[in-house]
This record gives sequence, C-alpha cells and structure tokens, in this order.
Amino acid sequence: MLKLEDARRIIGAAELKAAEIGQPMNIAVADSGGNLIAHVRMDGAWIGSIDISIKKAYTSRAFDISTKDLAGESQSGGQFFGIHASNDGRIMIFAGGIPLKQDGQVVGAIGVSGGSGEQDHAVAEAGAAAL
Amino acid sequence: MLKLEDARRIIGAAELKAAEIGQPMNIAVADSGGNLIAHVRMDGAWIGSIDISIKKAYTSRAFDISTKDLAGESQSGGQFFGIHASNDGRIMIFAGGIPLKQDGQVVGAIGVSGGSGEQDHAVAEAGAAAL
Amino acid sequence: MLKLEDARRIIGAAELKAAEIGQPMNIAVADSGGNLIAHVRMDGAWIGSIDISIKKAYTSRAFDISTKDLAGESQSGGQFFGIHASNDGRIMIFAGGIPLKQDGQVVGAIGVSGGSGEQDHAVAEAGAAAL
Amino acid sequence: MLKLEDARRIIGAAELKAAEIGQPMNIAVADSGGNLIAHVRMDGAWIGSIDISIKKAYTSRAFDISTKDLAGESQSGGQFFGIHASNDGRIMIFAGGIPLKQDGQVVGAIGVSGGSGEQDHAVAEAGAAAL
Repeated sequence: MLKLEDARRIIGAAELKAAEIGQPMNIAVADSGGNLIAHVRMDGAWIGSIDISIKKAYTSRAFDISTKDLAGESQSGGQFFGIHASNDGRIMIFAGGIPLKQDGQVVGAIGVSGGSGEQDHAVAEAGAAAL
Repeated sequence: MLKLEDARRIIGAAELKAAEIGQPMNIAVADSGGNLIAHVRMDGAWIGSIDISIKKAYTSRAFDISTKDLAGESQSGGQFFGIHASNDGRIMIFAGGIPLKQDGQVVGAIGVSGGSGEQDHAVAEAGAAAL
Repeated sequence: MLKLEDARRIIGAAELKAAEIGQPMNIAVADSGGNLIAHVRMDGAWIGSIDISIKKAYTSRAFDISTKDLAGESQSGGQFFGIHASNDGRIMIFAGGIPLKQDGQVVGAIGVSGGSGEQDHAVAEAGAAAL
Repeated sequence: MLKLEDARRIIGAAELKAAEIGQPMNIAVADSGGNLIAHVRMDGAWIGSIDISIKKAYTSRAFDISTKDLAGESQSGGQFFGIHASNDGRIMIFAGGIPLKQDGQVVGAIGVSGGSGEQDHAVAEAGAAAL
C-alpha cells in the first residue's frame, strides 16, 4: 500500500526530471483505488494541467496501463476508441500516466502534465523509478 | 421481462468464459429500459471497466445493436461519429455490449469490459447465449 | 481485501432480509477504494435506487461512517451541511450505507436502497453481518 | 504570488497540527486564481475528503471568506442558501477553508477535510499561520 511518504518521494524525483528538462509540470500520485494521494503544481506550470495530471494517474490505475500505450488503442479506428467518454470524464488518453508497481503488483499510478507528451512521459518514468 | 435470476445465469455463463480465456472481467446486465439489473467485477478486473461494462449494456439496449457493430459507424468519418457525446456520456462505442433477445424481441443487454475488444465481445456472447 | 465471493455472500444475506421484510431492494458492495464490486436489483425494486445504492456504498467507505449517522450531521444547521454537493454528486446522506469491517479495519461498504430509511439500514446491517 | 514552496510550508504546518490532534487530514492549497497548487492526503485520511479539501480551498478564495463563516449564511433560511449549487459543484459551505493573506491581500486559500468541522478549521488555521 502506497503511503504519503512514497508519493512524496515519487513526486520529488519527477520534479527533478522536470527541472532538468526545463519544463514545469503538474504531478499527481494515486493509490490502488485510483484515489489521489498527493499533487503538486510546479511554479509556472499550466493550470489546465492540474486536472489532467490527476486524471492521468486515475486512468493508468483504472486500466493498469500507461496512458501512452492506451493512446495507441484509443484513436479513431482503434479497438478502444470512445473510452475517453467513460468514467464520467476521468479518462485521459495521451502520454503522461504510468502505473506504479511493487513486487510486480500495481499499487497506484503517477500522472504528469505540463509539456509535450514525450516530456510528460519521461517525467512520469523518473517518478515511477523512485518507488 | 428479464428477472434477477436471468441476469445471474447470464453473468455466470460470462464469468465461465472469462475464466476460460484467463482475463478477469466486469459484467453487467440491463433490462428493457436500459436500467442495470446486476453487475459483478471479477477479482483482479480493471476498476475503470466497472463504468464501461454498465454503459456498454445501456448502449446496446439503447440502440438494439452490439457495441461492436455500433463502433463501425461511429469512428471519425462514420455516419454516427459523435454519438458517444450523447446520452450524458452513457454511450460506449467499442466492442463488449450485446442486446439480449427472447422470442426475437430485445429484452435487455449485456455489457462486458476487462480485456481486448475481441475478448469482451466473446465473453458477452457467452453470457447472451445463456438466456 | 474484499473478493467477489465476499460481496456475493453479503448481498445474499441482504436479499434474505429484504425478502423477510417484503420490500425488494437494490444492493451494492464497494471495495476499500470505494469502487463497485457487485450490484443486484431485486425483481420489482425501484430503478431510481440503482444509483442510490451504489452511491451509498461509496459514501460509507469515503467517510468510514454509516450514511444514517452522516445524515445526522448533514441537515441544514449541521456541521457537514452541504457535503452532498461534494464528490461530483456521489454522496448520499440518508440511511442505507454501512462500512464493512474486517479485524477492525474498514475494507469496503454496502449500500442499500429500495424502501424506507429504516428498512434500507436494516437490510444493510444484515448484509454487513455476513462478512 | 504564492509559490509551491509556500504551499509546502503551509501544508507542513497543517500536517503538524493534524498529527497533534490525532486526526489524519486532506490538505489543499489554491492560488489567487482558485487553482490548486498542492494537495496531500495523510495516511488513513478519508478518501471522500480529497475532493472536499480542494473545493474548500477554491471556495475560500472564490469569496475571500472562510467556509466556516460562509456556512453561517448558507443554511436553509440564510441569505446565501443555495450557493452550494453554483460553480458546477465546487462550493463547500462547511468549516475547513480559510483565505491566505499577504500584506492584507488575499493571495490564495487553504482547504482542510478529514475530521469534525472544528478540527478541520483548526488545522486550516495552523496552515494559514505559516504563510
């Protein structure tokens, strides 16, 4: 079970990566039930990304998949096209969410938003690696 | 008119198929009004699929069509593109929902979510066959 | 951690109580994250109570309290008046939801809707006692 | 203008107070635009309070008033009764939200949820005092 101190360590590592890239980010960590444990908005990060970061974390836990991989299946013509209309608008289908694993089990997820899809994913990976 | 015992028999058959495939699923059965009769989430099934299974059942009854067939018309460029934005977000346009028929009449629908579109549809078919 | 078989046992006990009272009910069980595990609508139960039963289960887990006790604090003039406007409409502040405990720990909740507040609460208690 | 480091200092002070009281809390800090800067859920705090803490912070900044004071005017019969239905469900009208001031100017707000109204307000005050 993820604790607040885990979430803080994960967020701290993600912030370092964001600073390295030079792009301020919103970073959120959710638990195994998809419920938010902690969120930070770095100075200068987009306010529209607050909600996106929280929902990317939810989405990655909801389907135990990175939102980058989910994106591939969710475009027009893909097998999951339309999934973004489910879960009362909480599903994000672009890069930046990654499941968090402990001993091979998904225990939560991180969601990052504030830059390009590639940047968001890289920052999320840095956060996930700190668990 | 579908009864709770019908819904349970349908869900039981769908669970057997899901176990055979080895993919835990969310399974929902709706009545002729599109309203939920019963839902189960098998152990380990995605939490994001709770909502999707219930809405696939609603959608299949709402238009008396499988969501797999509706999907074909609902991609960008298709004649029903945008339909997923209707009905206050209750329309799912990817495989896993199937109308339930008795004596040629639609009496409800089953919705399944938890795997690939192909898996969801196969499990829904197994459930529907139990009516 | 609650399993589907636990949820089914809980729901079965609640159904027995509802049948004894002679009032058909909607019965829902949620896990520790507040996410639905299973739901049934007994034959003849109100369709408006589908949503209410699921949300009563969510509410009882969300605040680790019965919705009957929460109700007492949530009327006009009470310390939590207005709480029903939170959590995007998922909070129910009338009797019928009860937390489920194992070894003194809340592991989920049951939500019941279909009769008077007193009846709903009694059926929820019968369900909770089966865990 | 509040910075992330300010929000963290405020949250840290609030956590200390919550620990002293012995009641785990959700704590959120919003900026002058009412937008979330940071949120933490202490281990064991209610999941239903995630949303409430964030919305208490929004509400306190939205009207530059503590939610405890707003509550007094928002009960049935009060001059603002019904205000909780505005702002798409983001208005919380019970204690736990406090505006944050710098040089007499409101620069943001703190929102706390996880205990009684009195506890939430006390923890919010401890946080606000750290600015």
